[in-house]
Amino acid sequence: MIAAFSVTPLGIGEDVGEAVAAAVKVVRESGLPNRTDAMFTSIEGDWDEVMPVIKRAIDAVKAYSGRVSTVIKIDDREGVTGGLTTKLESLERHLAG
Amino acid sequence: MIAAFSVTPLGIGEDVGEAVAAAVKVVRESGLPNRTDAMFTSIEGDWDEVMPVIKRAIDAVKAYSGRVSTVIKIDDREGVTGGLTTKLESLERHLAG
Amino acid sequence: MIAAFSVTPLGIGEDVGEAVAAAVKVVRESGLPNRTDAMFTSIEGDWDEVMPVIKRAIDAVKAYSGRVSTVIKIDDREGVTGGLTTKLESLERHLAG
Amino acid sequence: MIAAFSVTPLGIGEDVGEAVAAAVKVVRESGLPNRTDAMFTSIEGDWDEVMPVIKRAIDAVKAYSGRVSTVIKIDDREGVTGGLTTKLESLERHLAG
Repeated sequence: MIAAFSVTPLGIGEDVGEAVAAAVKVVRESGLPNRTDAMFTSIEGDWDEVMPVIKRAIDAVKAYSGRVSTVIKIDDREGVTGGLTTKLESLERHLAG
Repeated sequence: MIAAFSVTPLGIGEDVGEAVAAAVKVVRESGLPNRTDAMFTSIEGDWDEVMPVIKRAIDAVKAYSGRVSTVIKIDDREGVTGGLTTKLESLERHLAG
Repeated sequence: MIAAFSVTPLGIGEDVGEAVAAAVKVVRESGLPNRTDAMFTSIEGDWDEVMPVIKRAIDAVKAYSGRVSTVIKIDDREGVTGGLTTKLESLERHLAG
Repeated sequence: MIAAFSVTPLGIGEDVGEAVAAAVKVVRESGLPNRTDAMFTSIEGDWDEVMPVIKRAIDAVKAYSGRVSTVIKIDDREGVTGGLTTKLESLERHLAG
């Protein structure tokens, strides 16, 4: 499965870059395939691999703020691995097609 | 924390009521405070209580469909319990105020 | 269509109740069918009815904070109206089995 | 503001690549700064620029399916433009820091 997530600390001001970086650091050190853009960080793996990483990422943000809002979107497709790159390649093929 | 989640099975037609009911059944049998409306089911508890319930709810939907999309929004506020009802009461007080 | 949305102001502290109440007030004054729980406010109507209400709700929150994060989930099913209540009734029927 | 969105057609099978490509095509032809990864397409602009593009993208998917589920996450920060690239650069600086 692929899980895209975004963590928002409340109450530490509008600039949340340092807290968000702490979350992304956790993900990059996890060893799981991952990718971060301006809005979400995506991780690929099984539920039992991915969700503990997201929990640790949230915990890293909770070191900065007593209230953290998290959004997670999961795409779980049986028998699919490598989706972090293959989904995008398939999309580009459709667009080129 | 409170987690609101929504599970969408792909590829079983537009009417997904039976699969969604299977997910809600898992939540209601969990013993955790919960509430379902037209768009989301909310559950309150610690991460280690709530997330296994959501996993089992997704698994119940996967019995119907090989591809399941899930959206989760978490509000994790230190020291707050009972938020499923108190947040709404606080809102109504603000609106009455 | 039904749109469930949640508005989060950053940088005004952990207690965002007053700002959120301002958003819900906009929705309740819209005249569209709506419902608020601890996590989301749902509104039913056409895109051109619903989205301007959400925009005004966000603007009401921006009066409190220079940075606002919003999550919207839309369920758009052809030919369905009244879904805010009928979806839930259908779910309960499935659960009653 | 930046809006990240994801469109899911129900009832056309598990492979939704063609319908999703139709949505992304609308975004790329919009002229607004945009970026697509495996989970979301992000667009940057004002509400009145971005939301009509998302509406047209949803309409493109509705040509394939009578029921479409959409998730949108908006980050609206006063006075910030170019966030699609600057947010990520700022993150990398924090991580390098």
